[in-house]
Amino acid sequence: MMRDHFLLPANQIYLCGHSLGPTPKTALYKIDNVLQDWASQAVKAWNTSGWFELSTSIAEKIAPLIGASSSEVVVCDSTSVNLFKVLMSALKLNQPRKTILTTKDNFPADLYIAQGIVAFRNELNVKTVNSSELYEHLNETVAVLMLTHVSYRDARIYDMAEITRRAHQLGILVVWDLSHSVGAVPVDLTACNADFAVGCTYKYLNGGPGSPAFVYVNARHDNTLSPIYGWMGHQQPFAFDLTYKAIGAAKYLGGTPPILSCKALEGALEVFNSVDIQTLYQLSQQHSLFLMESLQRLGLELLISTDEPRGGHVAFIHQQGYALSRALIDHGVIGDYREPGLIRLCVNPLYLSMDDIKQCVERLQHVLEKQLYLSPQYQQILKVT
Amino acid sequence: MMRDHFLLPANQIYLCGHSLGPTPKTALYKIDNVLQDWASQAVKAWNTSGWFELSTSIAEKIAPLIGASSSEVVVCDSTSVNLFKVLMSALKLNQPRKTILTTKDNFPADLYIAQGIVAFRNELNVKTVNSSELYEHLNETVAVLMLTHVSYRDARIYDMAEITRRAHQLGILVVWDLSHSVGAVPVDLTACNADFAVGCTYKYLNGGPGSPAFVYVNARHDNTLSPIYGWMGHQQPFAFDLTYKAIGAAKYLGGTPPILSCKALEGALEVFNSVDIQTLYQLSQQHSLFLMESLQRLGLELLISTDEPRGGHVAFIHQQGYALSRALIDHGVIGDYREPGLIRLCVNPLYLSMDDIKQCVERLQHVLEKQLYLSPQYQQILKVT
Repeated sequence: MMRDHFLLPANQIYLCGHSLGPTPKTALYKIDNVLQDWASQAVKAWNTSGWFELSTSIAEKIAPLIGASSSEVVVCDSTSVNLFKVLMSALKLNQPRKTILTTKDNFPADLYIAQGIVAFRNELNVKTVNSSELYEHLNETVAVLMLTHVSYRDARIYDMAEITRRAHQLGILVVWDLSHSVGAVPVDLTACNADFAVGCTYKYLNGGPGSPAFVYVNARHDNTLSPIYGWMGHQQPFAFDLTYKAIGAAKYLGGTPPILSCKALEGALEVFNSVDIQTLYQLSQQHSLFLMESLQRLGLELLISTDEPRGGHVAFIHQQGYALSRALIDHGVIGDYREPGLIRLCVNPLYLSMDDIKQCVERLQHVLEKQLYLSPQYQQILKVT
Repeated sequence: MMRDHFLLPANQIYLCGHSLGPTPKTALYKIDNVLQDWASQAVKAWNTSGWFELSTSIAEKIAPLIGASSSEVVVCDSTSVNLFKVLMSALKLNQPRKTILTTKDNFPADLYIAQGIVAFRNELNVKTVNSSELYEHLNETVAVLMLTHVSYRDARIYDMAEITRRAHQLGILVVWDLSHSVGAVPVDLTACNADFAVGCTYKYLNGGPGSPAFVYVNARHDNTLSPIYGWMGHQQPFAFDLTYKAIGAAKYLGGTPPILSCKALEGALEVFNSVDIQTLYQLSQQHSLFLMESLQRLGLELLISTDEPRGGHVAFIHQQGYALSRALIDHGVIGDYREPGLIRLCVNPLYLSMDDIKQCVERLQHVLEKQLYLSPQYQQILKVT
């Protein structure tokens, strides 16, 4: 759809946009701007170049991608730090309930954040259940349900509307991680009446390595407290008030955001000005269906069936997964590997065509049929730990 | 000392390095590198370009500037978020004590963080006292003493060694904010036997707008918990363990750091490879003594006397402070203004010469004598809030 807007690694099929999106040319342009502003204006650029408003002006571009109002979104910190903030907020809102409920297939990084909270608050607990048994565990002891909308492993999509509805019936607040959804899958937080959400911007939004994450807070929770009283979230950051005052999503702003990384993200989001997420998603589904059927034909073990709702990548298991992923890289197929035995391939139609997916299948078939992954050079490589 | 290494705003004397350091050429070079790596390598650059190690490799360059071991420092998040983390760690270590003690002249952003913690933990409290009465308030009810080493207002320096010693005698842990110290004033955390410290890298380290901050944790607190269990701090981030394991300063790493902003900081720190902080500080003291005596001669009200230990900037009060600061900017003197009536001028010898300081004084004298700040254009500008 927008291939001309990207710089892609040469002679490779880049199927790793679920981990790090490739470089949008508009991001480079914005970085060039910000460096010029820093050099020529220095501190004055905070006002003259709109740096103070970046966290909210970027949020305005993300809001429509997740079905939120601009004032409900703010860009800041990492997904982990933001998840910490909204979990703490939700737990406080839902006192005296004491349980964070989540699923075993949630991203480990998200599980860690919940574990850290409980380590500091002995009265709380984290309950981690099989996703297939989720509904059975919804009850009035649960304070917060923490879920990742699209699974980082198998790209399976949770039914956000139905789960949120059921949770709300029991007085449970829901925190959604949209890291593998935003920019790939249509999301409508308003229609789902979601409570809180966080998400990553360097995957499907292509914001650059470690670009700042976002927080969504439903307007009805505007008066909720964030545990990290960040000065940038203060109603009047330069009044040098000794008492903290903040409202709305803006209160989740922590300290000074990393402006260079923000500007790259701001540029990256320009790509989405002329992209309809629904159309992008339909194309992505065509790509992934073709890839899944091809993988099945090659005898590979998929993690989900082709009729389950899925996000932007395809995952399969191979006993020699690590060696296979290395061999694929050497044949110009850039996916990634996750323990144990999991290979993920992202089919993003923003910068990939159906021809790319077909070529990926051909190269994969070649590597598999010739068993190239058995070559000593791939067998001997130490695993990344 | 290193003026050739910087790009400074043209035709201006840049005296605002205490707020945002100017652009080091080596930062631009590193940004150029990282953009090329992102475009040509994309996700592979995490390994091939050392992005995974950036938080610790940059920390290695900051450690000697604050008298710490490399393993005691990590670069991540903002100063505010880091302050939150170490305050929470220190409070947990020093249970069942319940008081965070701090001073009224502490940076409001730091006071906010303490207020946020207390808002979520009703059993805790923040006690904010006059700095002149600090010692009287040290007692065995205090869990954590939170201080900013060099005051953001008047550049006054707290006696880190003596205060830490006295606090420890009473079982109090001390958290130092080094935002206005690092890169400007010699700091020896090891000699002072400090507990925790945080600091900003976009002031005297010139890391660029919003460059990530740092955390220092004394090695004897290696087993302390951080409340934000960040996946990048896990001992094996890619083992996808369901249980969090982390040790040392590295555990204060949150989520993925903003790599573009990290790279600018990495480049900026190269300037310090050939700078001796003691020498830099002596030059800075000569600059600031000259400036302070000149300001006194012009009848301006200094905030501290010339024989008090001071950091890298000079502050004075003027009834028409805001209008005066605007008039100064139009005469090429870039300082900043803080309510009420405070003008701050940073005399950093890294990129300023004594001639610059003399010219600053001449221009200031001109604006004052002609009362140019009374011109309607400066009187009518609305205050930034």
